[in-house]
Amino acid sequence: MKDSVMPLSMYQASAPVFVAMLNNLAAILEKAEAYAKERKIDESVLLNWRFAPDMFALTRQVQIATDFAKGTTARLAGVDVPKYADDEASFAALRQRIAKTLTFVEAFRPADIDGSEGRDITLTAGSRELSFKGQAYLLRFALPNFYFHVTTAYDLLRACGVGIGKMDYIGAV
Amino acid sequence: MKDSVMPLSMYQASAPVFVAMLNNLAAILEKAEAYAKERKIDESVLLNWRFAPDMFALTRQVQIATDFAKGTTARLAGVDVPKYADDEASFAALRQRIAKTLTFVEAFRPADIDGSEGRDITLTAGSRELSFKGQAYLLRFALPNFYFHVTTAYDLLRACGVGIGKMDYIGAV
Repeated sequence: MKDSVMPLSMYQASAPVFVAMLNNLAAILEKAEAYAKERKIDESVLLNWRFAPDMFALTRQVQIATDFAKGTTARLAGVDVPKYADDEASFAALRQRIAKTLTFVEAFRPADIDGSEGRDITLTAGSRELSFKGQAYLLRFALPNFYFHVTTAYDLLRACGVGIGKMDYIGAV
Repeated sequence: MKDSVMPLSMYQASAPVFVAMLNNLAAILEKAEAYAKERKIDESVLLNWRFAPDMFALTRQVQIATDFAKGTTARLAGVDVPKYADDEASFAALRQRIAKTLTFVEAFRPADIDGSEGRDITLTAGSRELSFKGQAYLLRFALPNFYFHVTTAYDLLRACGVGIGKMDYIGAV
């Protein structure tokens, strides 16, 4: 039953997970772009869709998903988090942002992130300062938040009628 | 920077994560129940809310979230997955289902799940048979699916006006 697969590590539980899900998200956005074109819906209608007046719209959900991917891997590796301008106004621009994030995340090697379980991570969320050890940061804050924004982006587009299904979210498994 | 925190393990990345998020979900459902009562909205309106005609409603999202928590921990530990009747028709019943799931998941000890990276996992999803090693099963299938259903439950209730925020989803960190 138990064979020679490598033990779970901080790298395995972060970088490749972000890469897989961001690739799935990019493919979902491509379908949304095609759907808008086909139905002659202005892209901005979908990009500004939201579930409640005080919830973030689609564009911001995608931006924050990429922020968690770059922020988490950078912090676990102990390098600066790249800043993006947050000025995307089209599906193409959002996909470029994802591509840029993928390039950043894919550059990490296991040795950069492995062993970061006990690394002290401090960050500001709104007006609160949050402090974590690396493992709790990844499992209890970064991954739940990352999945929240990817899922909400999916749900928004699903609610708008884009022809996507659960396997677009999960990807090839 | 790196101190004596225990290395990441299959147990740490599964059971306590499910427990934390299911507790958060139970608290969210409690707020939804109170909201329905206060506004004199029939519970079934919220329980049957969905984002698209061919997406699952709230009740099913919560059921599937618990299914991933019990199914994942059981499969990684190599024990039978408990079957539930899927007959919940109230917030109270859904919270009971979560409580039952928590009791099951909390009974696992690290030794039951640790070392399951290479365990062969086979399951049926719709009409497809899926085969994984334990690590890929957890990281690329079980956790993304679990978070999908917890987030969608949150989004549905948020769209219905329930007074919840991101910290209800993330919980105490």
